[in-house]
Amino acid sequence: VLKLYSYWRSSASYRVRIALHLKGIAFEYMPVSLIQDGGQQHAADYRALNPQRRVPLLVDGVFRLNQSLAILDYLESKHPQPSLVPEDAQLRARMWAFCHTIAADIQPLQNLGPLKYLTREFGASDEQKNVWVRHWIERGLAALEEERRSEPDAACVFGDAPTLADCCLVPQIYNAGRFNCDTARFPRLYAIAQRLCGRPEFIAAHPDKQPDAAPA
Amino acid sequence: VLKLYSYWRSSASYRVRIALHLKGIAFEYMPVSLIQDGGQQHAADYRALNPQRRVPLLVDGVFRLNQSLAILDYLESKHPQPSLVPEDAQLRARMWAFCHTIAADIQPLQNLGPLKYLTREFGASDEQKNVWVRHWIERGLAALEEERRSEPDAACVFGDAPTLADCCLVPQIYNAGRFNCDTARFPRLYAIAQRLCGRPEFIAAHPDKQPDAAPA
Repeated sequence: VLKLYSYWRSSASYRVRIALHLKGIAFEYMPVSLIQDGGQQHAADYRALNPQRRVPLLVDGVFRLNQSLAILDYLESKHPQPSLVPEDAQLRARMWAFCHTIAADIQPLQNLGPLKYLTREFGASDEQKNVWVRHWIERGLAALEEERRSEPDAACVFGDAPTLADCCLVPQIYNAGRFNCDTARFPRLYAIAQRLCGRPEFIAAHPDKQPDAAPA
Repeated sequence: VLKLYSYWRSSASYRVRIALHLKGIAFEYMPVSLIQDGGQQHAADYRALNPQRRVPLLVDGVFRLNQSLAILDYLESKHPQPSLVPEDAQLRARMWAFCHTIAADIQPLQNLGPLKYLTREFGASDEQKNVWVRHWIERGLAALEEERRSEPDAACVFGDAPTLADCCLVPQIYNAGRFNCDTARFPRLYAIAQRLCGRPEFIAAHPDKQPDAAPA
């Protein structure tokens, strides 16, 4: 059985959990707290598994794979049904571009590592860090929203069935909520995510439903 | 003919240029200065093409595609030979994880946008910004180096022929040089990149060889 090393609030882990549930793949949940013990991802035993000291990490037998988007692509190749990647080359390319915008332009700047650095080296206050995070989330999601203006509305980001774009969008909207972003800057994407959050696969993948979720 | 909107020093643009040259695909070079005029990527005509206001952007007829890794995947699907993606599912997954580590964990933090923000909001000096950039480049490349310890040495990141991992590595090593990173933290990756830089396709893609390169 696949093992997923995950942290409940990690949005990159959340992406992978959604894909696993959409594909109906059983997996064992291996919690790694990014908070406790100064960050359990830095512990020697975890670092031996994943020198990058990040989550998620997928373990498939002796094969270990990090980076959420690489894991999503791998799951698609090993478990092609239901497919989460469009067949048409241009649509597929646009889907990946959407995923990369979230994974490379938005999410890295809201990660714990850079936020800790801002405090340590620049004396950033909590409010200054929140402003920083909101800036990057709103800029990125507003640009994705602008790209969609000319397209018909649909249940999911690309058409009526979920793709990997939805696996990336929903965790990013979750973070937008945590940081009190102005969702009026990306109303269509927000509405798509809100609707998807009611589906059972997305409910099962939600941070609050994970075994390591902290009480509110 | 394909059009590539690019800036000579943009490492994401550099990735795509390498792939185009390795595949022998003719393209028209469309320069977008990220420096002049307060950043030409913010001009209305470019923003209409790419609401994300970033480079690279690939234009294939009426189809427009942003995000370097999505462009690399698209080029592979449209021009499969020579292939830059391994066929084996696990090797392919590892290649993508390597690319994502550079594109999502390292590069976003050294981008002009965050650096400008650090100056504007936190009063960061040039030296403080250089320390920030070096921190993320060295951390990321050292982790990738650590992952490779157990593997045989080879001409390229994954075996003897270039893959998309090499398209991502070489521009990141170029940036490591610009910011005076300690290359002793990733000696094997540095050596691979140095060797690749001597090949004609990598020479043609180098920032200094682009029509918009500024004089030294």
